[in-house]
Amino acid sequence: MKESLDYFFNPSSVAVIGATTRTGPGVFNPVDILLDKGYRGKIYPVNPKAQDILGVKSYPSVSDIPGPVDLALISTGRTLIPELVRQCVKSGVRGIIVISQGFADADSKGKELQVELMNAIAGTGVRMLGPNTLGLVNNFDSFITSFIHFNTMLAPVGVICQSGMFLTAHDEIFNGCGYAADIGNAADLGFIDIMEYYRRKDSIKVINLHMEGIRGGKAFLELSRAVTLEKPVIVYKTGRTEEGSRAVGSHSGSLAGEDHVYAAAFRQAGIIRAESIDELRDFNKSLIKFNQVPGNRVAVVTVTGGGGIAVLDAIQSCGLVPALLKPETVAEIGKLLPDWMGVSNPVDFWPAAMIYGFDEVYPQILNHVLSDPGVDILVCVINAYYPPGEKNTVNFNFIIEAAREHPDKLVAVWTLGAAKRYWTQFLEEQGQVVAYDSPERLARALGALYNYHHHIRTRKYDEVIKAGPPAPLTIDIKGMSGAAPGDKAMEILAGAGIPVVKDIFARNLEEAANASAELGYPVALKVVSPQVLHKTEAGGVRLDIRDAQGLKNAYLSMLEEVQEKSPGASIQGVLVQRYLSGGIELILGSKMDAEFGPVLVFGTGGIYTEIMRDVAFRIAPVSPAEALEMIGETRAGRLLQGVRGQEKADLNALVKAITCLSDLVTNNPEISEVDINPLLATSKGVVALDGRVIFGVGS
Amino acid sequence: MKESLDYFFNPSSVAVIGATTRTGPGVFNPVDILLDKGYRGKIYPVNPKAQDILGVKSYPSVSDIPGPVDLALISTGRTLIPELVRQCVKSGVRGIIVISQGFADADSKGKELQVELMNAIAGTGVRMLGPNTLGLVNNFDSFITSFIHFNTMLAPVGVICQSGMFLTAHDEIFNGCGYAADIGNAADLGFIDIMEYYRRKDSIKVINLHMEGIRGGKAFLELSRAVTLEKPVIVYKTGRTEEGSRAVGSHSGSLAGEDHVYAAAFRQAGIIRAESIDELRDFNKSLIKFNQVPGNRVAVVTVTGGGGIAVLDAIQSCGLVPALLKPETVAEIGKLLPDWMGVSNPVDFWPAAMIYGFDEVYPQILNHVLSDPGVDILVCVINAYYPPGEKNTVNFNFIIEAAREHPDKLVAVWTLGAAKRYWTQFLEEQGQVVAYDSPERLARALGALYNYHHHIRTRKYDEVIKAGPPAPLTIDIKGMSGAAPGDKAMEILAGAGIPVVKDIFARNLEEAANASAELGYPVALKVVSPQVLHKTEAGGVRLDIRDAQGLKNAYLSMLEEVQEKSPGASIQGVLVQRYLSGGIELILGSKMDAEFGPVLVFGTGGIYTEIMRDVAFRIAPVSPAEALEMIGETRAGRLLQGVRGQEKADLNALVKAITCLSDLVTNNPEISEVDINPLLATSKGVVALDGRVIFGVGS
Repeated sequence: MKESLDYFFNPSSVAVIGATTRTGPGVFNPVDILLDKGYRGKIYPVNPKAQDILGVKSYPSVSDIPGPVDLALISTGRTLIPELVRQCVKSGVRGIIVISQGFADADSKGKELQVELMNAIAGTGVRMLGPNTLGLVNNFDSFITSFIHFNTMLAPVGVICQSGMFLTAHDEIFNGCGYAADIGNAADLGFIDIMEYYRRKDSIKVINLHMEGIRGGKAFLELSRAVTLEKPVIVYKTGRTEEGSRAVGSHSGSLAGEDHVYAAAFRQAGIIRAESIDELRDFNKSLIKFNQVPGNRVAVVTVTGGGGIAVLDAIQSCGLVPALLKPETVAEIGKLLPDWMGVSNPVDFWPAAMIYGFDEVYPQILNHVLSDPGVDILVCVINAYYPPGEKNTVNFNFIIEAAREHPDKLVAVWTLGAAKRYWTQFLEEQGQVVAYDSPERLARALGALYNYHHHIRTRKYDEVIKAGPPAPLTIDIKGMSGAAPGDKAMEILAGAGIPVVKDIFARNLEEAANASAELGYPVALKVVSPQVLHKTEAGGVRLDIRDAQGLKNAYLSMLEEVQEKSPGASIQGVLVQRYLSGGIELILGSKMDAEFGPVLVFGTGGIYTEIMRDVAFRIAPVSPAEALEMIGETRAGRLLQGVRGQEKADLNALVKAITCLSDLVTNNPEISEVDINPLLATSKGVVALDGRVIFGVGS
Repeated sequence: MKESLDYFFNPSSVAVIGATTRTGPGVFNPVDILLDKGYRGKIYPVNPKAQDILGVKSYPSVSDIPGPVDLALISTGRTLIPELVRQCVKSGVRGIIVISQGFADADSKGKELQVELMNAIAGTGVRMLGPNTLGLVNNFDSFITSFIHFNTMLAPVGVICQSGMFLTAHDEIFNGCGYAADIGNAADLGFIDIMEYYRRKDSIKVINLHMEGIRGGKAFLELSRAVTLEKPVIVYKTGRTEEGSRAVGSHSGSLAGEDHVYAAAFRQAGIIRAESIDELRDFNKSLIKFNQVPGNRVAVVTVTGGGGIAVLDAIQSCGLVPALLKPETVAEIGKLLPDWMGVSNPVDFWPAAMIYGFDEVYPQILNHVLSDPGVDILVCVINAYYPPGEKNTVNFNFIIEAAREHPDKLVAVWTLGAAKRYWTQFLEEQGQVVAYDSPERLARALGALYNYHHHIRTRKYDEVIKAGPPAPLTIDIKGMSGAAPGDKAMEILAGAGIPVVKDIFARNLEEAANASAELGYPVALKVVSPQVLHKTEAGGVRLDIRDAQGLKNAYLSMLEEVQEKSPGASIQGVLVQRYLSGGIELILGSKMDAEFGPVLVFGTGGIYTEIMRDVAFRIAPVSPAEALEMIGETRAGRLLQGVRGQEKADLNALVKAITCLSDLVTNNPEISEVDINPLLATSKGVVALDGRVIFGVGS
């Protein structure tokens, strides 16, 4: 029985609604392409003015078609389309692709029309791809819905994209594909439906996403976390706009730009990010060819020493390391080289080739290196100056043979020279070898491959999901909106299980003096004013006050400075805190993202927060293991390990604070932003010295 | 009259010493290649056993050659070569290329042989390229010294490399070249000689360096500073080894790794760094084609909206910005589009093409965008699915015509699709257009082009060189070695013009108490011990001591901690300093580099120094403008501008401190490392709170 998306990708019959009778250059006729590519199902052109289209019998409307219709392609003026969709539904069509533009991609009228389309299929079980799409490609069954001609090339690759170019140039961009779908405006079918479809297809080994944005980030994160354990998912994300002048309520809000949120989600989901179009091709062919990588130790065999060094340079920034050859390997290779030449990695065998001839030494060298137990990956630099069969010096078949004899190792090639495309094709078609255009592209692709097989695929799924239900908040936050007052914010954080500094609210100098005596000097003062959001900038903080005289001086000077810097601010009083010195100042916070929910921020705090931007992001909720991972991603995390005479901080307490904040913001979606800054970390624990909690409008 | 290097690059006669009589696959015969490429000078093979080689009369030795010999190529066993070089010199040969390996690239015997070669030419006026080189390429005159066959391709590009692969694959790597020289071991001729030669050749528009390392960095920096004002210089630097376990005496020493020193030199010289082999090709063709870029505002014209967004994404990380189209342009383009479609950048004209046809609208759109005064650079995304002449939808000739009609603007193309190489060649041959393989490669190349024409070429040379002679140091440092004692280090810094905190040396608690009373509380204590280099780590620092009782507690606890952490350290006493709070903690330092001389380090100091690595490097001496540039490169620099409630620091005082340190280490090369950390910066000036000065061995 067909799954619902089989009606899209592999339909038995297709109605082409709005098909033109014309063909040839400058005419965009899907019937032409269906025929040209050899689609084997029934084609029903629909055009009230035509008898037949390119020799195929045409029908005035979809309801006139005699047999069942799996899929309808609609391409007409936008205002006609809602009615056509309703006709399709009525006629029993199972899937609809709306090719036309001018819906949510356009003006307000278009947005209304798109709602009409959704209403037309609502509750009917009929699904829709688009509008504003080139449709889809199924190269397994030669089914292409496009109205533009392009080359097709089969590979076990699934593509989900938001632009037709990833369909039309799939041969170049992905080195071929099996299925590709342009989700267009994604009014109905989107990333999640189609990823789930590709997940279940054994014919698809690698899934690719071109993403400009996503709705329903949470569900996407959950699905892709599971999918990446089964097959690799690669994303090419565009539309990294800076949110320049957006009003920002907190540091966490300003730090967690849109691209940071996506990056955090991709990382948590185990999705590999391609930073360029070139990487899409390189990553796909690597992940298809190699189901495993034994390790990350790379040896290079080359007749150009400079090329070998370039390879070893490049791999080291991609998570791979130069292999250290065993003494036996060095000795065996040394026998082939002149006395004066040492053997190391890269293995430059040029003089050996000059003495004994390439055909004699090349297979031997390859075998010695691949037999070395300290080598996981062999990279050959080949001088591809002429196409196969012409005057190339080296017989590159030896590489294919060596790879075949050492199936436990990975063999990759940098094809250097103008004939590289011929040799890349030759090597990749003949053997268990992948060839790359430059040392840097080779390094990034092999690094991604290693990362997938050694970190992503092998990770424990339960390590990255929440363990147990979160503790309920002990503070009542119902009906709050805007920024919580300073003392209330700290109360909420304490109620969530995050240690906060002890403080006392004082309305005047006398109360502040009493509070200081009660807490014990040294103390710190912080202004309390609804108008003052960033106290440090406003001059509303005084630290390390040692005695009553110091308190008086500090109190008066602080109020004067605040009034000067924020004229008209209503000062309700001050918070008196015990002053704590030493330790590392951190920021811990969160920001509500419309698609992904709360995003956690952790990193260097204090005056360095915004300048250093030394922060890690995660979509909440996070497990303790993920909290530890966040800490480890930051430079602050290294400081917490106790460098430069700092005491090692209490990481357990810090992990607990992160998971407590994660619980707080996950359970209370009315909280839009949290800043704990500084969160002071010492060997004795962590304590929030200042905190802000902002509630969303309408909570 | 010929310049000395003309004898190498364009000789009238060449002796090929050690020429083999054989030819064909697997035989490496330079005579074969000289004949094959069509060299027009005299060829004199030298081989005692041959009458002729490939039909060219052969001579038993170089002294038997009847006519004058401009250049000799030597390729024989290494031990024979010193005598052959002496014969060449005696016979009046002007230039010698030693192809053979096994010299300084090999064992100790090889190093001795290389010294013999140098002795053989010393004082004779004869120059040598190599040993261990493939020689050179002159594509203007079809003169190639290689013994390996490869394709040649002419372009106005000069190449200087340390590996033969940049000669043999010059067509692919650089998109062709005019001159190329492999300097091999660079025993005699090196980067400087050949760069000076290319500089004077009008036929060379761009100079490329493949550099693994350089001797004589200072002279290289000086020459390339001048050359980059005249023509662009690109470097591909390999061999970025980490100096892992090297013993490090100072933070400045550990921060300024070898690659940082080269990066600083390239930046100061105005050399463009290619981060990949791909960039070499892209940068060269861009710099050759375009002698100017009007500005950095980029508009994209495309029929794939997704592709347009990818381009605008990519350019923004390369110093370019999306153009904001003028209302008139928007209005004109809008006339061609359906009502519901807005016009913005990228300009997606697909619906217009559907309505009116590509040939009708494409030239109009291109003309509107190129006529917009807010657009400097036009990028066209073209769907190159089929080779020229096949079923491509769009007539790409319109791009060439548009570029021709708007010579004041720059037109670039992203060729998307498997037929890209045909279209790249077509467009670049026909018109004032450059085509790139991906949006990311396009962005990096145009970014480098903009940077060259707007920053490097136009910079004021006198801004980057030292103004006036430095002040002499007022402190005697003769005969010092190793780390200067704490008080002496601060004295040297003060003597160099850098403000240092006032301090008093105290040998015991009583003297410390007297010193504190004299300086006034609060004070800070720092241990003085020749064994304690990093005082903070050793527990040898106490800050913010408020009174006599506090002093006693601090003094005793500090000594106890130091003795515990550094057992056996001889404690000579303590330095008592006035304690200063507030301000930003910086590091200012220097490290002696064997090739480039003193390298300055500036950035975030204090506990964040090594963790943040927020530092800028420059080869000394630096001008005040360069010092300011260093500050601007760091995140600390932004903090100094007065963010987050910090007062704006006194940048003039900071610039002065940097130039004073620059003078100190330039004038006193016996100083191997300096660390001023922290250097405290406030609105009132800068002051060194702690400093270390290390003298080199043997000074």
